[in-house]
Amino acid sequence: MSSEFGSLLKISVFGQSHGRAIGVVVDGLPAGEAIDLEELNAFLARRKPGKSHLSTARREADAPVFLSGLENGVTCGAPLCAVIENGDQHSSDYDALQDKPRPGHADYTAFVKWGGQADMRGGGHFSGRLTAPLCIAGGIAKQILSRRGVYVGAHLQSVGTVADALFPLRPTKELFDAVAAKPFPVLDDQAGERMQALILEAWKNLDSVGGVVECAATGLPAGLGEPMFGGVENRLAAALFGIPAVKGVEFGDGFAAARSRGSENNDPFVMEDGRVQTQTNHAGGILGGITSGMPIVLRTAMKPTPSIAQPQRTVSLSAGENAELVIHGRHDPCIAHRAVPVVEAVTAAVLLDLLLEGHHGTF
Amino acid sequence: MSSEFGSLLKISVFGQSHGRAIGVVVDGLPAGEAIDLEELNAFLARRKPGKSHLSTARREADAPVFLSGLENGVTCGAPLCAVIENGDQHSSDYDALQDKPRPGHADYTAFVKWGGQADMRGGGHFSGRLTAPLCIAGGIAKQILSRRGVYVGAHLQSVGTVADALFPLRPTKELFDAVAAKPFPVLDDQAGERMQALILEAWKNLDSVGGVVECAATGLPAGLGEPMFGGVENRLAAALFGIPAVKGVEFGDGFAAARSRGSENNDPFVMEDGRVQTQTNHAGGILGGITSGMPIVLRTAMKPTPSIAQPQRTVSLSAGENAELVIHGRHDPCIAHRAVPVVEAVTAAVLLDLLLEGHHGTF
Amino acid sequence: MSSEFGSLLKISVFGQSHGRAIGVVVDGLPAGEAIDLEELNAFLARRKPGKSHLSTARREADAPVFLSGLENGVTCGAPLCAVIENGDQHSSDYDALQDKPRPGHADYTAFVKWGGQADMRGGGHFSGRLTAPLCIAGGIAKQILSRRGVYVGAHLQSVGTVADALFPLRPTKELFDAVAAKPFPVLDDQAGERMQALILEAWKNLDSVGGVVECAATGLPAGLGEPMFGGVENRLAAALFGIPAVKGVEFGDGFAAARSRGSENNDPFVMEDGRVQTQTNHAGGILGGITSGMPIVLRTAMKPTPSIAQPQRTVSLSAGENAELVIHGRHDPCIAHRAVPVVEAVTAAVLLDLLLEGHHGTF
Amino acid sequence: MSSEFGSLLKISVFGQSHGRAIGVVVDGLPAGEAIDLEELNAFLARRKPGKSHLSTARREADAPVFLSGLENGVTCGAPLCAVIENGDQHSSDYDALQDKPRPGHADYTAFVKWGGQADMRGGGHFSGRLTAPLCIAGGIAKQILSRRGVYVGAHLQSVGTVADALFPLRPTKELFDAVAAKPFPVLDDQAGERMQALILEAWKNLDSVGGVVECAATGLPAGLGEPMFGGVENRLAAALFGIPAVKGVEFGDGFAAARSRGSENNDPFVMEDGRVQTQTNHAGGILGGITSGMPIVLRTAMKPTPSIAQPQRTVSLSAGENAELVIHGRHDPCIAHRAVPVVEAVTAAVLLDLLLEGHHGTF
Repeated sequence: MSSEFGSLLKISVFGQSHGRAIGVVVDGLPAGEAIDLEELNAFLARRKPGKSHLSTARREADAPVFLSGLENGVTCGAPLCAVIENGDQHSSDYDALQDKPRPGHADYTAFVKWGGQADMRGGGHFSGRLTAPLCIAGGIAKQILSRRGVYVGAHLQSVGTVADALFPLRPTKELFDAVAAKPFPVLDDQAGERMQALILEAWKNLDSVGGVVECAATGLPAGLGEPMFGGVENRLAAALFGIPAVKGVEFGDGFAAARSRGSENNDPFVMEDGRVQTQTNHAGGILGGITSGMPIVLRTAMKPTPSIAQPQRTVSLSAGENAELVIHGRHDPCIAHRAVPVVEAVTAAVLLDLLLEGHHGTF
Repeated sequence: MSSEFGSLLKISVFGQSHGRAIGVVVDGLPAGEAIDLEELNAFLARRKPGKSHLSTARREADAPVFLSGLENGVTCGAPLCAVIENGDQHSSDYDALQDKPRPGHADYTAFVKWGGQADMRGGGHFSGRLTAPLCIAGGIAKQILSRRGVYVGAHLQSVGTVADALFPLRPTKELFDAVAAKPFPVLDDQAGERMQALILEAWKNLDSVGGVVECAATGLPAGLGEPMFGGVENRLAAALFGIPAVKGVEFGDGFAAARSRGSENNDPFVMEDGRVQTQTNHAGGILGGITSGMPIVLRTAMKPTPSIAQPQRTVSLSAGENAELVIHGRHDPCIAHRAVPVVEAVTAAVLLDLLLEGHHGTF
Repeated sequence: MSSEFGSLLKISVFGQSHGRAIGVVVDGLPAGEAIDLEELNAFLARRKPGKSHLSTARREADAPVFLSGLENGVTCGAPLCAVIENGDQHSSDYDALQDKPRPGHADYTAFVKWGGQADMRGGGHFSGRLTAPLCIAGGIAKQILSRRGVYVGAHLQSVGTVADALFPLRPTKELFDAVAAKPFPVLDDQAGERMQALILEAWKNLDSVGGVVECAATGLPAGLGEPMFGGVENRLAAALFGIPAVKGVEFGDGFAAARSRGSENNDPFVMEDGRVQTQTNHAGGILGGITSGMPIVLRTAMKPTPSIAQPQRTVSLSAGENAELVIHGRHDPCIAHRAVPVVEAVTAAVLLDLLLEGHHGTF
Repeated sequence: MSSEFGSLLKISVFGQSHGRAIGVVVDGLPAGEAIDLEELNAFLARRKPGKSHLSTARREADAPVFLSGLENGVTCGAPLCAVIENGDQHSSDYDALQDKPRPGHADYTAFVKWGGQADMRGGGHFSGRLTAPLCIAGGIAKQILSRRGVYVGAHLQSVGTVADALFPLRPTKELFDAVAAKPFPVLDDQAGERMQALILEAWKNLDSVGGVVECAATGLPAGLGEPMFGGVENRLAAALFGIPAVKGVEFGDGFAAARSRGSENNDPFVMEDGRVQTQTNHAGGILGGITSGMPIVLRTAMKPTPSIAQPQRTVSLSAGENAELVIHGRHDPCIAHRAVPVVEAVTAAVLLDLLLEGHHGTF
């Protein structure tokens, strides 16, 4: 339950934004996997704030310290624990907010659940900062997967109403790497320019804007996943909704499929290279919850950052009356672009779990 | 894993479309709950085929037999098992399909997973028929919830590009009942007429069409759900993707939130009737994965029925070469309207599970 | 939770002793496994009452009906559901007991948990009769395991203070088969005679007697199981305590190890037949929770049948005062010998689950 | 799976004996619970080595650092992570052992599972040192339980063949406290003297000796636990077998029940103080897996420390031939007395989990 997902591979996340440290326990990693820390840090850097004028100025060191599970750079089979110390906090920014829950944040629901003891400084355990340990787990999973020919990549598919291209039918590792190397993770840089202009404009208006992240995975064998509730979609969705701000998850054509015809949406099977494949991939690589061997394609809807600098209406919990709130401090006018590696990370962790489970349909 | 969901309340579904019987085990139901079988059968009737010219002619008796857990119409605490015998099957319709997987169905992925032994007659365990036992479990959950003032309702929000109205800010039990009583489950009957025309047109063109189901739940206390991966969204999504044909799940504004501004998407807190409420409900009643006390609102995208009467391209698995396929037999040109009670059922089961768990944040 | 165990292979048991039927859902069985129903029925017959003058006269048909998951005698991958109709019930025997909980039974605790709605006729869901569906699941698991060279066998290791021999260091399939074929499942028939005399004597004294079942499994590879809480011992114990009347579980030397020295209890490693083995097997084939490749050896302590014909002290729940109780009806004076196949069944199911999981330590 | 247990309250343990740190994540703790760190440290001190001449000289600082979940000494609802840095390691002691697995340890099984990358210095993740984080989790659980009138205590019930008294029918908090305050945790100090003499004698003979820990819990309401596999015994056993060296678990009379008669083993119900109680407690407070309101009583068999100073037979994994092994370094000749607080800790954690779940039989 709670801050954990996975079956044979369990990812357990802990920490509050302004507590002593945040971290992750990854239980069930195969042993003997060399982890390239440079590559891992490069992956972590992709979600870091402060990369550009579009992100909050908070500096995160985010250098993970491995307390267990990794010896001499190689997984040893025991649960891996990685920790990132928290620094550079301005908790006083949040002192006034204790009584006035910020609209769109978990302040109020956490207060109801945990009472006045809830540590909501900087969003507490609900903070986007908790995606850093997720990226540690997912970055490790990505390395293990890529060694088996499974590649996971993502891009910012839209910001507001500005859309990037969609992934092609068969995205390649090279395409994933190319997007990952960009300062702004889109396929079409011109669309990226327009997105950034939109984010800047929102910022100037003391506002924020949402976006969609598209993620794909290639190289998975057909036959992974279980029917009904143990399907690939079920497990990915259960994990992806754990990323703060995600309000929708779709696979393949997703909601667009609901507007299409069967004759359009069905993917014809064809023999190609001696293998059964589909000519199109409206199903996003999943039929009946089970992988078809085609690329997995999914999209997550990220709501606009709830922290905006405009005055907002809220209540005073102590006084039990309406109140006004102005949020100070630094906040990203858009978090969708920083969520790109996070969606990759969570997807990779779930897919590694599925792969470890094997396709034990027959044995 | 597999064909089961839930934590304290576990729903385990079994059966193949053309096997001897289908059924469900519901483990963890509270004892002492009287189940109104007439009301339950009326609920089950809502998903039944053959109600109109829009549905497959297959007659399903669907009268559940309770093997355990229900004595004298009252739950006794022990796991409840309900079974529906299968009858009226035309398995021969499917004999030719063993070798030629139907596009959009799980035939191929089940074949890869389970080999030639997979029982895919009528879709086997992946058939929409398996939603009948889900409705038994969910119909029981609905009755238990309603006794505590929690009501779950749904409507067909769109078919193809024809949209129904959305639920109002505070949908009522009366509204839910009114929609449930309609032969075509929409809020706006004129939209419903256009939807039915669209479905008929698709049918005439030997095609099918998808749709969106919107579901809401009222009366839940604030504070249910756990942070990150144990949230209400995570659990609902994990279960909802178990309904055949669901390719997307969103909460509150969902994907539309990704196109909006923070100033639009944030729900201002206000004091109303002495309680903290929100003026709007773009969050769909969930903040940080935890219920806010506002109505839960979610939507599921249902793809168009993959079984269409047009010739389709596929492969012969035995010959390893491309082939053509014509699907005979009776098939709904749209399953979204029949999915309305199924989405209600799954939602109700998950919410009862959450309610049983209680909001044990403090104790 | 509740009436279910297993990870990738889930066994979910339902039914009450005097309800309509009892049964089991087995979710996660590999597809393509032929099940020999004659062999399965022979296995089920081993736990049946009424075999001798030592058992209750209740006749159980116990012929399982397969509702799903098994087509033409072969598993198809979908969840398997098997059901046994209940017949030959004398519920009136239990009518008077509703108010006076039987000592040693779950009557009182079920009443506290579930209130007056608890169906405790014949022990309800807590009845030993629920071990029949367990034996269906376990009997199937045994067949699948034996096809991979894994054999599970058990014998009655003691009744009261009369002890059978212990399994030898390397029990064989032939030994397991020989014990299984005996009307009284012991290694040493002379000990068996003394046990039966003891049971008869207890019966004549309107009393009952407990016993110990020893179970072994051979042919498992080394490396199965996870450290700490995912170990083979943890999982076996969690399942074995689900068998009614089990009050203790030990592995290898178990409690005797607590009385021994390290120099006696350590199993020296030796090379034999080119493989690492141990010269003794005080560890019962498990070190650090992980299989060593040596036979798994475990013992379960079964308490004496709580239903005895002597007058017993209890309370009247309605009157809130002390009362006397005389239990009528037919009851086994010892259930330990009938538990032998049940312990085998549960052990086999857990081991198949572990084997399906594979030893994914490295991959 | 793996190094985690619990349902609503999850305890996830990480670390290797000679790695950088060991620790625990406790997910699902209620918020607002003040934790007395002095009391917690006093509890941790009870399992520490080096208290007497009977224990290994390794000094453990064992002062836990709380990275999350505890703010100003009060739980905040978010997952709690506590870490203990490792110091004072003599890893070189173990260098020679890499190739020669120590009998009775997990060296060989971990090698099979994880290959050469397994970090088995000091026992690695299988080390008794991992019980320190368990005690952090359990010590916190004990404080939360005691605030609700639930007390958990344990004593060393035997060493070798020397037995302490058993807990009385109704052990009190005062008795638990008195035993906990003793340097050697027994009820009968004369038995304790004989036990210590036995341990010393074993040590002088370069040997070790096993023992039994008895644990009890008072104050639990009746009605906790689920039938069959979700019972109190199942969950406690599943967790207790995670303590290194545990080879047997029994409840109430346990294995002795298998040697007794029904007329002796049944606990008569009686009205006392207006409540239903039992006159004896052979059932250990659990009937049908569900708490009866009487004290929970359990015992765990701890095998003798496998590390002994005598030469032992083993194999060289690289050479594939028999070999001799002498284990150097410091090792406890008995670990059972140090396991007393560990058994308390694990029991407390499981009982808190059950209590959080509530007795949701009716609601």
